Amino acid sequence: MHAEILTIGDEILIGQITNTNSVWIAQKLNLMGIKVVHMASVSDDKEAILKAFSDAQQRSDFVFITGGLGPTKDDITKKLFAEYFNTILELDAQVLAHVKSFFDKRGREMNEANRQQAMVPKGCLVIHNQSGTASGMWMQKENTVFISMPGVPYEMRDMMSNIILPKIRAENKLEHIFHKTVLTQGLGESFLAEKIAKWEDNLAAKNIKLAYLPQPGMVRLRLSTSGNDFDTIKKTVEKEIGILKILISEYIFGYEEYGEEPPSLEKIVSELLRERKQRISLAESCTGGYIASLFTGIAGSSEIFNGAVVPYHNNIKHELLKVDHSVFEQHGAVSKECVLQMAEHAKVKFHSDYSIATSGIAGPAGGTPEKPVGTVWIAISTPEKTIAMRFIFGYDRQRNIKMTAATALNMLRKMILKEELKD
Amino acid sequence: MHAEILTIGDEILIGQITNTNSVWIAQKLNLMGIKVVHMASVSDDKEAILKAFSDAQQRSDFVFITGGLGPTKDDITKKLFAEYFNTILELDAQVLAHVKSFFDKRGREMNEANRQQAMVPKGCLVIHNQSGTASGMWMQKENTVFISMPGVPYEMRDMMSNIILPKIRAENKLEHIFHKTVLTQGLGESFLAEKIAKWEDNLAAKNIKLAYLPQPGMVRLRLSTSGNDFDTIKKTVEKEIGILKILISEYIFGYEEYGEEPPSLEKIVSELLRERKQRISLAESCTGGYIASLFTGIAGSSEIFNGAVVPYHNNIKHELLKVDHSVFEQHGAVSKECVLQMAEHAKVKFHSDYSIATSGIAGPAGGTPEKPVGTVWIAISTPEKTIAMRFIFGYDRQRNIKMTAATALNMLRKMILKEELKD
Repeated sequence: MHAEILTIGDEILIGQITNTNSVWIAQKLNLMGIKVVHMASVSDDKEAILKAFSDAQQRSDFVFITGGLGPTKDDITKKLFAEYFNTILELDAQVLAHVKSFFDKRGREMNEANRQQAMVPKGCLVIHNQSGTASGMWMQKENTVFISMPGVPYEMRDMMSNIILPKIRAENKLEHIFHKTVLTQGLGESFLAEKIAKWEDNLAAKNIKLAYLPQPGMVRLRLSTSGNDFDTIKKTVEKEIGILKILISEYIFGYEEYGEEPPSLEKIVSELLRERKQRISLAESCTGGYIASLFTGIAGSSEIFNGAVVPYHNNIKHELLKVDHSVFEQHGAVSKECVLQMAEHAKVKFHSDYSIATSGIAGPAGGTPEKPVGTVWIAISTPEKTIAMRFIFGYDRQRNIKMTAATALNMLRKMILKEELKD
Repeated sequence: MHAEILTIGDEILIGQITNTNSVWIAQKLNLMGIKVVHMASVSDDKEAILKAFSDAQQRSDFVFITGGLGPTKDDITKKLFAEYFNTILELDAQVLAHVKSFFDKRGREMNEANRQQAMVPKGCLVIHNQSGTASGMWMQKENTVFISMPGVPYEMRDMMSNIILPKIRAENKLEHIFHKTVLTQGLGESFLAEKIAKWEDNLAAKNIKLAYLPQPGMVRLRLSTSGNDFDTIKKTVEKEIGILKILISEYIFGYEEYGEEPPSLEKIVSELLRERKQRISLAESCTGGYIASLFTGIAGSSEIFNGAVVPYHNNIKHELLKVDHSVFEQHGAVSKECVLQMAEHAKVKFHSDYSIATSGIAGPAGGTPEKPVGTVWIAISTPEKTIAMRFIFGYDRQRNIKMTAATALNMLRKMILKEELKD
């Protein structure tokens, strides 16, 4: 089963945006066992688009097209789609109703450009866009299915995940592929590789592929295999993960099976709190609201999240979180003493069971020989105790913020589960 | 002058890496006035690569190829390059000396695979690789120049910047290209298009292309043109932007010239505050720390950012921000009265000149007929006054958070500049 991805729009050709849609689609197809043989980007140009369509038809069973479906004049994909399939655009009543309700709900009038979005090539299967007004289109020519989607990443992803990929899976006999990803926090890629080198050497003989997928503060280890019997290949992978678990148990915080929503650390922690009917609050200095935004990005977070203070100055740390002036004088704001007091007072102030406090030098400026850029203190307060740990991350501000968040969330996770924390 | 970019290698097709090489090359070519008309990625497969070569020859004056030049077996670009040009590989003494010295300096022995790297197609111009062992190659067929480079980003970039681009510039009379992007907030793509339809209709006659680039809560409008004289084409674009400014002045928050760091709303607001030696604080309910993380993600933010409270429950809104209990009883937390009190008390509590308060129903649950999901109240408090406005965004939680942030930041920007706010 061969597929290809075609991106339409000048913004990629002039280097203004990176083609993340293609990467995402390629990953999803790959995980399903569909081989991507070609990717291309062409401009909003009639000849270029039609040539790309006919080339793709020579090569592939599926052609995934993104971009060029908006209501504005520079978007010509839909017209060319109709032309390529020798058909006309006609009004789709369901799409019109959807577009209309989309505007009604926002209390706005539809204009002519919006109405045009309900025009679709005659004979195409319309793919509903739950988060926007540009519908997707599914049309077949000879043995090739062409699927056109909007370029807005979340609209495209919704369509792919909810409609297109399930449809392809249901209609085709694909070889089974099984992937499971082990989520780790606290050890860098090369150190992890060293710890599991012997185990990794044996995977090839079992037809298992291993991929290291690093993120700031975390490394995901993806094991993949394929075969005709799903249960057999699943067991093969699970057995190896069982061995891996013994080697690096203290770094593993979760697992991700393909098709599941990948569990982030904040989701795992939120779930643990929800099960226990407990609540969290935050006092974020160097993470500056980032951990709060992770928790509150999850639907229903008000059940477990009471609130946060971002005390970006010492006087605010004192006034809002009762950190003693003597702490700043004797130890500075980036210190064990400071985060301990921040965590304890946040817990009281927000009436929560747990709290996290962070204070550090995110960079790029502000470092000293004793406390270089990347120095971070994290405190976790539980119903029983409050502990603090020091870390030295790197030089990049955004990365330091993310590494602090990942580390703090994993510390909290372990303390909720009453696991041991190691330096 | 037309160019295209061809990437060879499976790692892009399986979605393991993002194609940053193509973005970089496209940006450089674009700035030189060379139009990129096509980008493609193919696997290490003979037929696919040869077809890509001949397709490219039909379209372009320059073909930039990356990848497939390493010493391992799956790298076949060089062999196919020789085949496509009907020539043979021969040993290049200079390249051999370079590869040998490369290994000598590292105290390592060359192996046979490394020696193979000194084989190049007969008749090609060898491009020296100062940071690696795989040479670049420059060959012409009819009117098309093919340039093959390694896929390792810094090796490719060195070759392009030091050798290839200067050579192209020296040998060709290039047309200039000018882009400028107008950054807008507060009006959706289709409504913007309607407002500027007449203006847009006249652009073609002036050889200006317009692109709509939407993001949550924002739309960027990119104007591009080309010509022989840089000052003339720049003036042509600037003149049109001057007219656009009159049509949609209240939605424009900035401009981006190609090659500059694009200014985000949070950076623009931070800069305005820094210039005025003023400070901001936040009371974020529905945005949950997201706006704080935007400000604190900027290096040096402690100069303008005093802190934030994320009061995720009514009792916290009361205790920390002194919102009256009667407000919750009479109006609810998602109300004008609530955000006004939040903003005013945050400003006092954090000793800041300005404050932003947000309260809304981010979704997906929690909506009512009167206050559907997406309803958001935003208040801005300035040294002179506090105002609040209501918005109804959409259904997607993450998107609602981002739209609220963009809207609030732009309201703040206007109030700092004492511009009028319109509903």
